[in-house]
Amino acid sequence: MAATTISGVDHVAILVRDIDASLPHYTGTLGFRVISDESIAVSGGIRLVLLDGGNVKVQLVSPTVSTGPFVETLATRGEGLHHICLTVPDIERAAADLAPGAKVAINDPGGRPRTAFLPPGPNDLITELVEIPNL
Amino acid sequence: MAATTISGVDHVAILVRDIDASLPHYTGTLGFRVISDESIAVSGGIRLVLLDGGNVKVQLVSPTVSTGPFVETLATRGEGLHHICLTVPDIERAAADLAPGAKVAINDPGGRPRTAFLPPGPNDLITELVEIPNL
Repeated sequence: MAATTISGVDHVAILVRDIDASLPHYTGTLGFRVISDESIAVSGGIRLVLLDGGNVKVQLVSPTVSTGPFVETLATRGEGLHHICLTVPDIERAAADLAPGAKVAINDPGGRPRTAFLPPGPNDLITELVEIPNL
Repeated sequence: MAATTISGVDHVAILVRDIDASLPHYTGTLGFRVISDESIAVSGGIRLVLLDGGNVKVQLVSPTVSTGPFVETLATRGEGLHHICLTVPDIERAAADLAPGAKVAINDPGGRPRTAFLPPGPNDLITELVEIPNL
């Protein structure tokens, strides 16, 4: 199978229980600048803080509800690195190439890049895609 | 505390049981180019395959022995994202700033960049440092 086009890594996500408690390590100690801080209605409710890691972004993810997949992951695996998000120019094509035959839900928030999580793949690696058209 | 200087993210590491079995996903499906493939005598013995992810490198790590910390992690957490490696211009200073008071072992392979793993930090994030002097 021909490889789909992957432009690079958009962000690496870290699952944490409490972003307010965790953030000072990333901003104060590591010196990462906050790019955005938002709560969105995905997986029941999550808060996402995006940090500027230089060549790649680092995202803190925390559930804002008491149930759902992120809460389950915290219970089973605990905190830590959670997923990697790859930048692709065409998200439908990438999803078809990377998860052939699978039904991949594409999130289209409108006015923002479309994203999708691939079904669980090799090595328990959780992979997200974000669509950034080539310039 | 003043933040130490972090130049960026050198690589993101994925712990796998069998690199030979895993590699086709990363090279064939994702299309990442292999930068290096080596076995080194760290933690008893590990094999490291470094992949070009574009803006950041992706490293596959697999133990080549039957005991040791990587084997233990496979048993407790399974495969998946393992650590993040930050590029710093001065590894002694970064280790002192990021893990004050801790004894941090600096690996000096000679002829290659020096590296160090920080002691376990917030959010169970495993953080490695690699020293790349500023140009």
